[in-house]
Amino acid sequence: MGLIEQLEWRYATKKFDEQRNISKEDLDLLKKTFALTATSYGLQPLKLVVVTDKKVQEQLVAHSYGQKQVGQASALFVICTEQSIDATFVENYFARVEQVRGTPSEVLAPFKKHLMENFITKPKEQLTLWASKQAYIALGNLLTACALQHLDSCPMEGFDPQGYDSVLGLTEKGLTATLVMPIGYRADDDFMASLAKVRRPVAEVVIEVN
Amino acid sequence: MGLIEQLEWRYATKKFDEQRNISKEDLDLLKKTFALTATSYGLQPLKLVVVTDKKVQEQLVAHSYGQKQVGQASALFVICTEQSIDATFVENYFARVEQVRGTPSEVLAPFKKHLMENFITKPKEQLTLWASKQAYIALGNLLTACALQHLDSCPMEGFDPQGYDSVLGLTEKGLTATLVMPIGYRADDDFMASLAKVRRPVAEVVIEVN
Repeated sequence: MGLIEQLEWRYATKKFDEQRNISKEDLDLLKKTFALTATSYGLQPLKLVVVTDKKVQEQLVAHSYGQKQVGQASALFVICTEQSIDATFVENYFARVEQVRGTPSEVLAPFKKHLMENFITKPKEQLTLWASKQAYIALGNLLTACALQHLDSCPMEGFDPQGYDSVLGLTEKGLTATLVMPIGYRADDDFMASLAKVRRPVAEVVIEVN
Repeated sequence: MGLIEQLEWRYATKKFDEQRNISKEDLDLLKKTFALTATSYGLQPLKLVVVTDKKVQEQLVAHSYGQKQVGQASALFVICTEQSIDATFVENYFARVEQVRGTPSEVLAPFKKHLMENFITKPKEQLTLWASKQAYIALGNLLTACALQHLDSCPMEGFDPQGYDSVLGLTEKGLTATLVMPIGYRADDDFMASLAKVRRPVAEVVIEVN
């Protein structure tokens, strides 16, 4: 199937088949997909927590407004944002650029100066918001990757980040849970699976300037 | 090539080949991809402006901090958010659900009540922020779709939304420009194309709880 057929096929899965696990190969592919996601300035203010411990998943259901797919799914992806977008974070980024590309530091200096003086100096609230928006790019990328691999998933904004923090120990890791995505295979009796996809038609959501 | 190879291949293209245009088929595929993007509650608070008029693209360069790729690209995608997330917007959504799925309105009533009483009543600023986050899901989806089609693109947060508004007449359309994405084919001499991709390794950005 092509991309459009796969995007038509996917839906926000509400009930997963608890007997079916996704393969190690698919899991590895999704982790790589996450790491390859484009982010603003290439800074990657994100980490991905992959939960496959069913007991932990069960604990997280209570912090997800009781949504059972969190406990049922083969893997639970928790897209987290970095809490410290600071000078160290930027230094590490430029160390990586120098290492991977061999770019001399003097060539990178103007960009680095910009980030150090005009970006990380922004109020913490703005940087947190900036990071959280990048998490949505990763979500969009992962949703499409799942569809292409014929994996079911459910994008979720509705959960209690503090509850996730306490169960997963995110604060100690410098992270905040931002988006949640159970991944696996749809249950045969998920009635949502049979419903037609509701979307505004292309002619309604696309405006041409040509 | 597989998904990972295509995601490795893509990069934020800084210089496009002005002689090469993307096909109508690819453009149609990207429009459908946009329309199929998952959004919170399925509400789709987004529209896509597709600019292929080179004179308009040239005008928008000035509102994009002079970034020339906006003028050079075969097509300029402007992902816009809806300004009015209100009762009418929600009514239209439920009319669509009833039409497509034939779901009786009494079945939808509790969800509709929730959106009417607890969601669209939020402060305008919160709804705008919510909508803008959905635009990033569309961006993530479109970036991956482009990579799969071997199309080059450049995700851009850095532009002047008011300038875009004045050139494209977005306010009259009830829209705000949120993200910009020139799409086309990389120029042979875009020096960015030859640089190795800089990413934190999977082992650094993925935390396993198993």
